Amino acid sequence: MRDVAIIGIGMTRFGELWEMSLRDIAVEAALKCLDDAGTEHIDSVTIGCMSSGLFNQQEHLASLVTDYLGRRNTPAVRVESACASGGMAVRSAFMEVASGISDYAIAIGVEKMTDVDGNLATKALATAADGDYEAFHGINFPGLYALLANAHMEKYGTTREQLAEVAVKNHRNGALNPHSQFPREITTDTVLKSAMIADPLRLFDCSPITDGAAAVLITTVEEARKIGKHPLVVISGIGTATDTIALYQRKDILKMDAVQMAGKRALQMAGKTIHDVDFAEVHDCFTIAEIMVLEALGIVEPGQGGPATQNGHTALNGKFPVNPSGGLKSKGHPVGATGVAQICEAALQLRGQADKRQINNARTALTQNMGGSGGSCVIHILEAK
Amino acid sequence: MRDVAIIGIGMTRFGELWEMSLRDIAVEAALKCLDDAGTEHIDSVTIGCMSSGLFNQQEHLASLVTDYLGRRNTPAVRVESACASGGMAVRSAFMEVASGISDYAIAIGVEKMTDVDGNLATKALATAADGDYEAFHGINFPGLYALLANAHMEKYGTTREQLAEVAVKNHRNGALNPHSQFPREITTDTVLKSAMIADPLRLFDCSPITDGAAAVLITTVEEARKIGKHPLVVISGIGTATDTIALYQRKDILKMDAVQMAGKRALQMAGKTIHDVDFAEVHDCFTIAEIMVLEALGIVEPGQGGPATQNGHTALNGKFPVNPSGGLKSKGHPVGATGVAQICEAALQLRGQADKRQINNARTALTQNMGGSGGSCVIHILEAK
Repeated sequence: MRDVAIIGIGMTRFGELWEMSLRDIAVEAALKCLDDAGTEHIDSVTIGCMSSGLFNQQEHLASLVTDYLGRRNTPAVRVESACASGGMAVRSAFMEVASGISDYAIAIGVEKMTDVDGNLATKALATAADGDYEAFHGINFPGLYALLANAHMEKYGTTREQLAEVAVKNHRNGALNPHSQFPREITTDTVLKSAMIADPLRLFDCSPITDGAAAVLITTVEEARKIGKHPLVVISGIGTATDTIALYQRKDILKMDAVQMAGKRALQMAGKTIHDVDFAEVHDCFTIAEIMVLEALGIVEPGQGGPATQNGHTALNGKFPVNPSGGLKSKGHPVGATGVAQICEAALQLRGQADKRQINNARTALTQNMGGSGGSCVIHILEAK
Repeated sequence: MRDVAIIGIGMTRFGELWEMSLRDIAVEAALKCLDDAGTEHIDSVTIGCMSSGLFNQQEHLASLVTDYLGRRNTPAVRVESACASGGMAVRSAFMEVASGISDYAIAIGVEKMTDVDGNLATKALATAADGDYEAFHGINFPGLYALLANAHMEKYGTTREQLAEVAVKNHRNGALNPHSQFPREITTDTVLKSAMIADPLRLFDCSPITDGAAAVLITTVEEARKIGKHPLVVISGIGTATDTIALYQRKDILKMDAVQMAGKRALQMAGKTIHDVDFAEVHDCFTIAEIMVLEALGIVEPGQGGPATQNGHTALNGKFPVNPSGGLKSKGHPVGATGVAQICEAALQLRGQADKRQINNARTALTQNMGGSGGSCVIHILEAK
């Protein structure tokens, strides 16, 4: 297997991009990525997108974006694993290069979710749940994560305030990120007084509906060394795992098996433990999700996700910074783009280019991207070399 | 890059499978594939499916199928490239094994298209065209291929009867295939007297709407030799390419650039020319498609696809048999399954197990799977070793 490095990153602003079409957004991120890489070389295009079919009545997206990127005839494919589509696209691009099929592979994550009719966004997102046994009966993701939050509060004594602190922290970080959809600090009260969505989750516990795209260009470490103007960012580990997509089928809904296993696999491939990791970008689609992911990855003990957030352990200046980008909560969550955007942030931090939100001495990063309520998860370990 | 072989194949019957859900169909093909392989070993699952989101309101399909296959926690992802999704899934599984990320990778192609409301099938399929510049204006795939047929008849003098002969040949082959949706011979008259769909294409020029799944298990050639009870089937070449997904953007709509380039790349990787190939499974979504693909691959000269079909060149006992399985036309076209099913047929022929439709001395096969009106294409070269 050939060693693989990231030589370019690019992102659009995340938000309600009314003036841009799906293809425009994807192309903008890709062009910024190529500009950052300082090369025009692309052997293959991998698109991460959850559901351009439902959101935009457009399948066959990889060919379309490749053409509009000016790369007609280049091999291209889309990968999907619900909200983990972006991370899985980077994994596919990794395989392109690692196998030797491509020397330069670009992964572009994209979703355009706002320019749609009525409640289509919630309906489309619900297709990441089990259609026959969950969505058909009317439950959607705020409802599923509310079940998890209630169970977590019941078992571990996690408090309503601790959930809110996840949002407060991530908005504090996101306020420093020029790509953020909501770059504004909030208080605990902002969360606690916001509208109830699915008890106990309130509006500010939920990541927003977002348009956006992110792209990374990868090649072999050998090629990267030839080009490299930045400190070299290497993908040293990838782990992925699945679980039942229906919550009711799990033995213990508070254990995120896919996250735990993907983390173990990624760290093992990189020859690391979680204690070697300096910071993480994790999938905080809801505040409870970040808390559960911290526990599943072993960043904290089971039940300690709430207290650790409250006491600043995961703050930008804490012992283990989590979501320096602002996370899905503040930066926004264009689902197919999210996993790629996490990797852009990790690379930016490892290069020491994260400006006001720069983490000191960041050498090893973990990015955790998941689908649905943890039915799939993909984790990357990135290192500055 | 590690050398890769196919050690298992499995298919459901193709047709209107009212009694089976999307997940049931995918699992049945996978179980048959494992049974055929004589191993239970799977390190990763790749699903090829065009649009379970639109057809079945179910994204996140790879995790779901992996769980129902009894492989909870196994890495899984779905890939999509419209009607080339199946072929691209096999390519992804190939990369899993070639890169060393997986030792055993299963690719499962699936689509459930019949159990849907009204004209959803045609609408969903139209998302493989350019949403903004084709589908929005009301054109669908019968219309797009009708444009191609008219242009081909105008430029090359291809006749209405020659188009019909593609369907007649493929139904003759499909009548020998127990998996076929329509295993019945037809006459030229059947085609010429069938209902007009989009002038000049009639009902029997069009592939049907189908439910079905197909699966292949791949591993390294080294592992395959240890297990191998069948003649070894090796994937010696893969080529893929894209084109504009909108027809109007092409300089010459009669040249299928993606098909031509994918073919060149696949043959080059295998160290072969088209003259070394013994037979092909090609993407005959409409009769005109098979004719144009024969020309793009260099099986015949430009403009000779019609006459070659009429004079028996591509018949089962002809010089270059095309679609021994019955093709999409007779066997059926569950879009995400089609590319995988082509590879199942090629492997069966190379093993000498194709029963009444066996091609003599079949040693090298080409499978050609494409998306939309040729906006993407993936080609595999398989060899018996």
